[in-house]
Parts: sequence; C-alpha cells; structure tokens
Amino acid sequence: MNIDRMKAGPRMSMAVRHAGTVYLAGQVPDNVSEDVAGQTRQVLAKIDALLAEAGTDKSRLLSATIYLRDMATFSQMNAAWDAWVDPNNTPARASVEAKLARPEFMVEISIIAATEIEKKLF
Amino acid sequence: MNIDRMKAGPRMSMAVRHAGTVYLAGQVPDNVSEDVAGQTRQVLAKIDALLAEAGTDKSRLLSATIYLRDMATFSQMNAAWDAWVDPNNTPARASVEAKLARPEFMVEISIIAATEIEKKLF
Amino acid sequence: MNIDRMKAGPRMSMAVRHAGTVYLAGQVPDNVSEDVAGQTRQVLAKIDALLAEAGTDKSRLLSATIYLRDMATFSQMNAAWDAWVDPNNTPARASVEAKLARPEFMVEISIIAATEIEKKLF
Repeated sequence: MNIDRMKAGPRMSMAVRHAGTVYLAGQVPDNVSEDVAGQTRQVLAKIDALLAEAGTDKSRLLSATIYLRDMATFSQMNAAWDAWVDPNNTPARASVEAKLARPEFMVEISIIAATEIEKKLF
Repeated sequence: MNIDRMKAGPRMSMAVRHAGTVYLAGQVPDNVSEDVAGQTRQVLAKIDALLAEAGTDKSRLLSATIYLRDMATFSQMNAAWDAWVDPNNTPARASVEAKLARPEFMVEISIIAATEIEKKLF
Repeated sequence: MNIDRMKAGPRMSMAVRHAGTVYLAGQVPDNVSEDVAGQTRQVLAKIDALLAEAGTDKSRLLSATIYLRDMATFSQMNAAWDAWVDPNNTPARASVEAKLARPEFMVEISIIAATEIEKKLF
C-alpha cells in the first residue's frame, strides 16, 4: 500500500498517510510571542490544515499527545483545546510536561487521525 | 470504516478504536496517595478495563509509552509492570521522565493495542 | 490478524508488527561513553536492524518520536538524523526533552513504520 507524505522535507514530513491512518509531525507555533492559549490556537490551526491536506478533519482524530513547556499552563491550553475539538468526536489524549525544540515554544501537539482512504479499501 | 469512541467526553475519549487498532488515553491513577507501585497498579487496572471495553486484552498490546514523574522510581514501576504484563505477548515500550498533569501523579501510561475487529475485515 | 513480536522478552518486545504497521520499542544506545551524535548513530543502527527483522526499512518510516536528554544537543542529534534518514521518505517527527531510563542516555527514539505485509492483504 502506498505511503503518502505531505509537506515532505529532507528531515521530516509534516504528515504521513498509510493504511487509513495519518500521522502528523509534532506541531509547534509559528508566532512564539503569543501566550500558551494563542500558541495552542496556532498549533490547532496547523493541525486543521494538515488534516485537510490528508483528506480528513478533526472529527476523525484518534490520538493526541500534548507536550506542554510548563504544566502550570494546562488550563489555558485546555481552554483553547476545548474550543477547538469536536466534542462528539474526541481523541484519546495524553498530556505531559517537556521542554521543546525552542525555549519559546510553550506547546507541541502530535496527532494520529483516521483518513477516509480506507473506504475504498475495505 | 467506523471509529468507535469509549468513555467519550467533550475533551477526550478514554479509548478510540479504528481499523483493528485501539488507542487509549494516557491513564493516570485515581488514588494519588499511593506510591508509584500502587499508582502503576491502578493505571494498569484501568488499562485492563478499557481494553475489555474495546473487545481486547493485554495479550494484544502493540505499544506502551510510560511517563514517570521521577525516573528514580523506574524499578518500582517495572516491578508492577512485570507482574501485570503477559510475558509471552509484550509490547514495544518507551519510558521517559516527565512531569504530569497533577504533581501527585507519579506515572501515566499510553497504550496502543490490537483489537479483534479485524478478524471480520480481512 | 496475527501479531508478530520480535526480540520479545518478558518485559517488552523490541518490535511488534500488526496490520501492516510495526511499532518499535524506544531505542537507546548501547555504548553510553559516546556523545549525542554517536549515541544517535547507535540508536539509528538499532532501528535499521529492527526494521530489517520486521521486513521493512527506513524508506517506510511513518512516525518518529525523539526524546533528548538535553535539548542543547538538538543540532548534533539532527546532524546524525539527517545523515541517516531517506530524504525522499521522511517520517512525521516530534522532538522533546526528557530524562531517560539511565542518566547516561542522551537520546531515545520511538518509531512507527509501515511493513510490506499489507501487500498480501489489501
């Protein structure tokens, strides 16, 4: 079965689709001057765009891993998450604290989602 | 193909099943007064219950990611893990140290497992 | 569908294959006297060996999660990664800082990859 890679670079791809599942690279904010709520909204918008490119959307999330620079910001991240996620189609989720690739990054989110591609296959 | 969500809330689902695979939310202990061994046993019991709800069990684990609040407790976590896991059917596993959503949480475990659903599909 | 476990021990398996996907245990270096670049090369060589045992290779990587002991070594890890990864077939990737099972471990990498097994199935 084909593997489809989206926004593929020589180090990583932003999304990789295989067998009805798409794996997104950990998404980080572009504008690090925003606070954790704003950074989370940026990250979620980037996830929306990647899911669309993969032919799916946030109603088909399977799993999310949320890395927070500072767990003290958990409730602010959650407020942005809750405003975004489809409340009838929520993923499995884990949230842990971790320093990220740049000290200004307050949040990074990794997503696994279902695509529609399997409709043709099964 | 359908996505089945178990113990689904507006923020996250405790388990999400798709294409013969189930993704569990990171499980944390309910009683944080216990030490890491007791907390690990609680987490593993919650995983057992979610796997059962998804129609599978610990003999079909694929992957486990273990987040420990303090890596100095690695051996105590491992003792609880070793007593629980099916020694003939062990998953791929990664263990890293991370602060968790509440400071009292000593351990969080994320699981990916196979379900039986694919028997009907393939 | 069968689950195939490779280098399976009573605590974990080094790789678990199911439904066209293989999950590798978080790989850590054997020789911790090396610096992060050397440790990363060791980890990537172990990943190559496990992928081969699972009937696949690094051109079919889906997702990589990189745990670095010290994010200050990000560029050294990346240099080793860039020299190894197939630039035309890069995975989704997330990189976070975390203390690992032994203080000498500077890097641990978890991989999900596609296998060839699904060619027979779909």
